[in-house]
Amino acid sequence: MRVGLLGAGRIGRIHGLNVAARSDARLVAVADASNEAASSLAQATGAKVADADAIIGDSAIDAILICTPTDTHADLIEAAVSAGKAVFCEKPVDLDSDRIRRCLATVEKSGKPLMIGFNRRFDPNFAALEKRLRSGEAGEIEIVSVISRDPGPPPVDYVKRSGGLFRDMMIHDFDMARFLLAEEPVVIFAVGSALVDKAIGEAGDVDTAAVVMKTASGRIAQISNSRRATYGYDQRVEVHGAKGMLRAGNVHETTLEIATRQGFRADPVQNFFLERYAAAYRAELAAFIDACTGKVAPSPTGLDGLRAQMLADAATESARTGRPVAIKAA
Amino acid sequence: MRVGLLGAGRIGRIHGLNVAARSDARLVAVADASNEAASSLAQATGAKVADADAIIGDSAIDAILICTPTDTHADLIEAAVSAGKAVFCEKPVDLDSDRIRRCLATVEKSGKPLMIGFNRRFDPNFAALEKRLRSGEAGEIEIVSVISRDPGPPPVDYVKRSGGLFRDMMIHDFDMARFLLAEEPVVIFAVGSALVDKAIGEAGDVDTAAVVMKTASGRIAQISNSRRATYGYDQRVEVHGAKGMLRAGNVHETTLEIATRQGFRADPVQNFFLERYAAAYRAELAAFIDACTGKVAPSPTGLDGLRAQMLADAATESARTGRPVAIKAA
Amino acid sequence: MRVGLLGAGRIGRIHGLNVAARSDARLVAVADASNEAASSLAQATGAKVADADAIIGDSAIDAILICTPTDTHADLIEAAVSAGKAVFCEKPVDLDSDRIRRCLATVEKSGKPLMIGFNRRFDPNFAALEKRLRSGEAGEIEIVSVISRDPGPPPVDYVKRSGGLFRDMMIHDFDMARFLLAEEPVVIFAVGSALVDKAIGEAGDVDTAAVVMKTASGRIAQISNSRRATYGYDQRVEVHGAKGMLRAGNVHETTLEIATRQGFRADPVQNFFLERYAAAYRAELAAFIDACTGKVAPSPTGLDGLRAQMLADAATESARTGRPVAIKAA
Amino acid sequence: MRVGLLGAGRIGRIHGLNVAARSDARLVAVADASNEAASSLAQATGAKVADADAIIGDSAIDAILICTPTDTHADLIEAAVSAGKAVFCEKPVDLDSDRIRRCLATVEKSGKPLMIGFNRRFDPNFAALEKRLRSGEAGEIEIVSVISRDPGPPPVDYVKRSGGLFRDMMIHDFDMARFLLAEEPVVIFAVGSALVDKAIGEAGDVDTAAVVMKTASGRIAQISNSRRATYGYDQRVEVHGAKGMLRAGNVHETTLEIATRQGFRADPVQNFFLERYAAAYRAELAAFIDACTGKVAPSPTGLDGLRAQMLADAATESARTGRPVAIKAA
Repeated sequence: MRVGLLGAGRIGRIHGLNVAARSDARLVAVADASNEAASSLAQATGAKVADADAIIGDSAIDAILICTPTDTHADLIEAAVSAGKAVFCEKPVDLDSDRIRRCLATVEKSGKPLMIGFNRRFDPNFAALEKRLRSGEAGEIEIVSVISRDPGPPPVDYVKRSGGLFRDMMIHDFDMARFLLAEEPVVIFAVGSALVDKAIGEAGDVDTAAVVMKTASGRIAQISNSRRATYGYDQRVEVHGAKGMLRAGNVHETTLEIATRQGFRADPVQNFFLERYAAAYRAELAAFIDACTGKVAPSPTGLDGLRAQMLADAATESARTGRPVAIKAA
Repeated sequence: MRVGLLGAGRIGRIHGLNVAARSDARLVAVADASNEAASSLAQATGAKVADADAIIGDSAIDAILICTPTDTHADLIEAAVSAGKAVFCEKPVDLDSDRIRRCLATVEKSGKPLMIGFNRRFDPNFAALEKRLRSGEAGEIEIVSVISRDPGPPPVDYVKRSGGLFRDMMIHDFDMARFLLAEEPVVIFAVGSALVDKAIGEAGDVDTAAVVMKTASGRIAQISNSRRATYGYDQRVEVHGAKGMLRAGNVHETTLEIATRQGFRADPVQNFFLERYAAAYRAELAAFIDACTGKVAPSPTGLDGLRAQMLADAATESARTGRPVAIKAA
Repeated sequence: MRVGLLGAGRIGRIHGLNVAARSDARLVAVADASNEAASSLAQATGAKVADADAIIGDSAIDAILICTPTDTHADLIEAAVSAGKAVFCEKPVDLDSDRIRRCLATVEKSGKPLMIGFNRRFDPNFAALEKRLRSGEAGEIEIVSVISRDPGPPPVDYVKRSGGLFRDMMIHDFDMARFLLAEEPVVIFAVGSALVDKAIGEAGDVDTAAVVMKTASGRIAQISNSRRATYGYDQRVEVHGAKGMLRAGNVHETTLEIATRQGFRADPVQNFFLERYAAAYRAELAAFIDACTGKVAPSPTGLDGLRAQMLADAATESARTGRPVAIKAA
Repeated sequence: MRVGLLGAGRIGRIHGLNVAARSDARLVAVADASNEAASSLAQATGAKVADADAIIGDSAIDAILICTPTDTHADLIEAAVSAGKAVFCEKPVDLDSDRIRRCLATVEKSGKPLMIGFNRRFDPNFAALEKRLRSGEAGEIEIVSVISRDPGPPPVDYVKRSGGLFRDMMIHDFDMARFLLAEEPVVIFAVGSALVDKAIGEAGDVDTAAVVMKTASGRIAQISNSRRATYGYDQRVEVHGAKGMLRAGNVHETTLEIATRQGFRADPVQNFFLERYAAAYRAELAAFIDACTGKVAPSPTGLDGLRAQMLADAATESARTGRPVAIKAA
């Protein structure tokens, strides 16, 4: 399979190197607004540098990875599927749900596979949890809890363009909650505060937030987010069911423990998302390649992207108005 | 110190035996509607059996422990403090907040100490957490999470008289959240479902619930409750602050672990609340005795009882209406 | 059952209070060289103070607990069983194996039950481990490892009278190893050093030691001891079998954990043996009472006491000579 | 740097791919008795296939990795250093200590760096432990314990050629003990049994073993080995010092935990040594490259290889004779 990459920034580079490391796919072309970023990755992988249009138009290319800025995603997806490519696109498809809907209509018409980059579904810990949950080991689902805390807040400039915490950060947790609940939330209530960085509050966003959701059958989901965690990148999931609890925890830097008069001390948890989710990115790419070759259906789908975005929109509205928001059909 | 006990049921018996085991207090009289319960405890402790009025009227008795059914608490508190006794009363003071307010007014007029039985504050694990939190080790508080799951649901008959899950069960977690937040919640949103026992739903109550609260300064609290936990009595607290996280977990039945082809298996957690909180009940009584002798102020106070009840009322309303509820001043 | 107690020091007091807390046994008399110790315990339990001979000679007493200094144990056991009493005696029966043998012969002739105070067998964690091991869950035993570390070294004066680390401290671990191995060691090799306190070395003893033993069928046991552990009283057991591993660990002071930039810190483990083994002492007494009433055979037996002593003697010799020592039949 | 690889079996392939993944080194040639193994690796890395002599004689090659059968190691090391190459060689240099000594003399004369493949020193967990130990956090060393258990026994044919458990398997633990002790053992005592596979016993070897060692200053080391562990590849280290304990544990397959009526179950630990030590192999290669370019001294050295071999020889003798063996100077 011949793969073209649009966007060679931090996450694009990860995907590009992961393609290069596979024996069943080849990275043939890289596009980036920064020539340096594109060239550096091209050199490391044996790909050529090209512009996005040329890559999309290249009939020798089978699949496109879209890792460009958010506001280009929908256009590029439409162009790529219309050119007959299978597409993997980093989340979100767009910050506007209606734009996502139009984009997905185009994808559907094209008949080409589209997969959205909710990488956490592919983390070995969370993936194993979901598999065990589906196997019924924990029984009927009652409560899903997701905790997600970044090591530190992003720059306020980034925050201003991000769509806000619920769309920028909690969207991953909305996808995780949906992935585990196996049922759509019908109502959401959100609270948020700026406790980490006052400037984030002044920019109209929050850095600390919690959400509660409920499905039609009565399942409950809780999410909490913070832009601060001194002890590493905190990523946890806990699911309660009729038969028991399943949880997947953080990955410590080492298994080392020191015991002294002060007690027992273990290392912080892995701090950097690219390290924490390195295995997830590899598994995600493998799933995309399997979807391209028809071995499996693409998942998470564009509809998953839309659904998560709708929850993020609703949470944003709830936190602003102080009222619960009903979730409509997609 | 001479102590009289009203109510020799399950929890009354615990307190009675704990008094008997102390060298600085003596259980002198026990009252119970069931003569058998009163006699059995009296025999085990060397106390005499008497009726409640006689105990309250006995000038040789310094302090009264009230462990009778909820609907008698307020009347007994008023009678006891008016008779000049120090009073310890199991939660709640009453299911009606206005009745609590009138009762507390009587207590205040009497000048006698009243302490409410929120035993979890005295659990060595949670008490240590609160102490470390207050010491500032975790920094300014951001998020408080409380998880509380009973091993199994109570009989539906009990549920019908209980005031509902938020007043019967989550009230402990409301007190714990207040204890840790060190700031009053100003708004609450609650969801609940009957997922464990349909009969509980038919009785108009829930058995699975989650709450999110926010304080004036923006601190967030999450609580989740269930009437079911296959793996034992689940009692956990996690607090995030600017400098780090503090958490206190469950107590396993033993430290035993078996590792086989199936993985590493540890014991369930302690299943029975009287075992789980045995040390808490002892420490609670010690605190009451210290309050009687003026060494410390009584805590948790009647106002703590009122505040927790108000949160339980608000949660009940929120779950019923689907709307957030503002918390008024006490 | 009416119980007399010889020796009201630290451990005697524990047993005395435990008798007093039971409903099926009564502490009726206490003897101690220190009148103050005897009186204090007698007062707390309603027992009378008497001398050892009077207690042994009192026909109204059914059972005797011997908690006096080691060099009196064998004589008192002989006197008590000869007077028709059931006897519980703290370890060791004597520091001299031949004296133990003579004493056990007297016990056997008397037909009265004798139980030796290897309290760790009754610790809920180790007891559960042994039960699971016997159930076959871990398969045929391959390796038993015991780690035992005291929080700090005893005074050198105590060390001089103690018989040395192998007889004073490791004897508990020899008993634990035998308890778990379910087969007698046939050879032992021991090494020891004075790394904690040079004065201990100058007194001819060691404070840090390790032992390896082997049984006739090839099972292996490892023990390590130290007179120092900054992080609490370290008491661990790990058993490997054909089907898996069973281990029982330390008990932390609380379940509290704090996570900061420095990592995740849990409390030290319980530091004081009377706290760590409080439940074990209660269970041990219950087992003795059951043995007195014939419900169960007394265990650990006098022979267990002799066997452990023989291993301690052999280890002492091995560490001194630098050679392995064969363990003879009892 | 241009690297040649001798031996493209399981471990050779790992090293070859790790060289290929680096930007500062290039795998240029691969030799293997099996043309298929050599070709397959050559194809995956862009190297050429050549025979060992040609690789050693190729003046364009800077460094040689020796991953061939044990009985060829010493000859190949001598040939390679004599040809001016830096050499990395898998353990052991030889099964005969005198042959190792002669080989090391040749290496010394050549002045070329030789590094021995004790990969565990480079495991991030054990490496972090050693670093913290050297920093003095745990104080003066008292006891070092190493546990090492393979998931399952090797074929008896392999066992017969292996030199026996102490030389084939425990040699890694001898190196680890030396690495951590920072002082040479002066005496060793070993016991072994064939409990896993009778055929191993019939072949004159053991599959279950324990060793105790002591250094001149009185530090103690314990090692236990088994050819069986149902719950994964068990690799643990625990070090006690005057100030506390340092330990590094196993890596579980995931962080998943399920809690049910049966208790809390975590996954087995990583089962396959190539997965468990994947990061160690990468770090080991990085260290070798740094040694080649003179950034660091090669470590572990040939002398480390000799020392570990001498301990393995002594343990073999001790287990056979039932006597402790004194360790001579290298």
